[in-house]
Amino acid sequence: MTDGGNRSILVLGIDPGIATTGYGVVREERDGSLVAVAYGVIETPKEEAFPARLQALRGELQALIARWKPDECGIEAIFFATNARTIIPVAQARGVALLTLADANLPLAEYTPLQVKQAVSGYGQADKRQMQEMVRMLLNLAKIPRPDDAADALAIAITHLHSRRMNQAGK
Amino acid sequence: MTDGGNRSILVLGIDPGIATTGYGVVREERDGSLVAVAYGVIETPKEEAFPARLQALRGELQALIARWKPDECGIEAIFFATNARTIIPVAQARGVALLTLADANLPLAEYTPLQVKQAVSGYGQADKRQMQEMVRMLLNLAKIPRPDDAADALAIAITHLHSRRMNQAGK
Repeated sequence: MTDGGNRSILVLGIDPGIATTGYGVVREERDGSLVAVAYGVIETPKEEAFPARLQALRGELQALIARWKPDECGIEAIFFATNARTIIPVAQARGVALLTLADANLPLAEYTPLQVKQAVSGYGQADKRQMQEMVRMLLNLAKIPRPDDAADALAIAITHLHSRRMNQAGK
Repeated sequence: MTDGGNRSILVLGIDPGIATTGYGVVREERDGSLVAVAYGVIETPKEEAFPARLQALRGELQALIARWKPDECGIEAIFFATNARTIIPVAQARGVALLTLADANLPLAEYTPLQVKQAVSGYGQADKRQMQEMVRMLLNLAKIPRPDDAADALAIAITHLHSRRMNQAGK
């Protein structure tokens, strides 16, 4: 069920934004257990011009990919309803994130918030706190990962690993 | 009034999108007259994955910049009200366009549709057809430029040149 049991797999989860982009690197071991390898946020300086902030986001993402060398990537999908005030800058940043991941030749999948909830909690109605507690437990962490964007990115990485397993189990 | 009368200036106007990005290259001569140097659209293949389309858009923009070597650039601003159905893919493409222009170290300004209307027609209530006719006249073209996205991009380039003049006249 875990990639044929042959090897571990490393997934980068991304929760894109312009001020803050959450990231989480999760390894699935050969025995199927999950390890939080790294997580945190990429912040871009508010005092910079918007295009310079996009360049900063790309540079930080490239550095993360170079450091951790993930095998695959999951990214949060965004919707028109997400947040009217911020949707345009967030979508612009997300375009740059997609470009950067494509440049790195990383297999990439998108997940809706509902897919993430269902993958992490097995139940689509879990609230934010319950979700974060599930992420903590699945990754054997002592505390809920902070900040929220990093926890969200870890949840996306877990969702991608869950999706891979489901696809392989169906073959 | 025209950059101190010292030299001509070449402006790239961009009307960003994912399926179609309009571009227009306009030169302001030393005598203040305008010349349409090039215009058209960048199209990305619908059958490709979205990140690959972003890569294609970047590549075509880079080729345009390398070919025409514009001095400055104007790009259309987008708003939440623009078009609910397409705003997310358009904003994602626009993020990649901003990144590509910043990488080329092109001075960049954003213009709202109202600013473009006012710059081109001197009157914010001109309809689309009137706008296109004004663009045709200002650029001494025999016909209205086609397609619409190319005409819009030429209008953005004209707006940027108009804005430069106004700023210099105010100094």
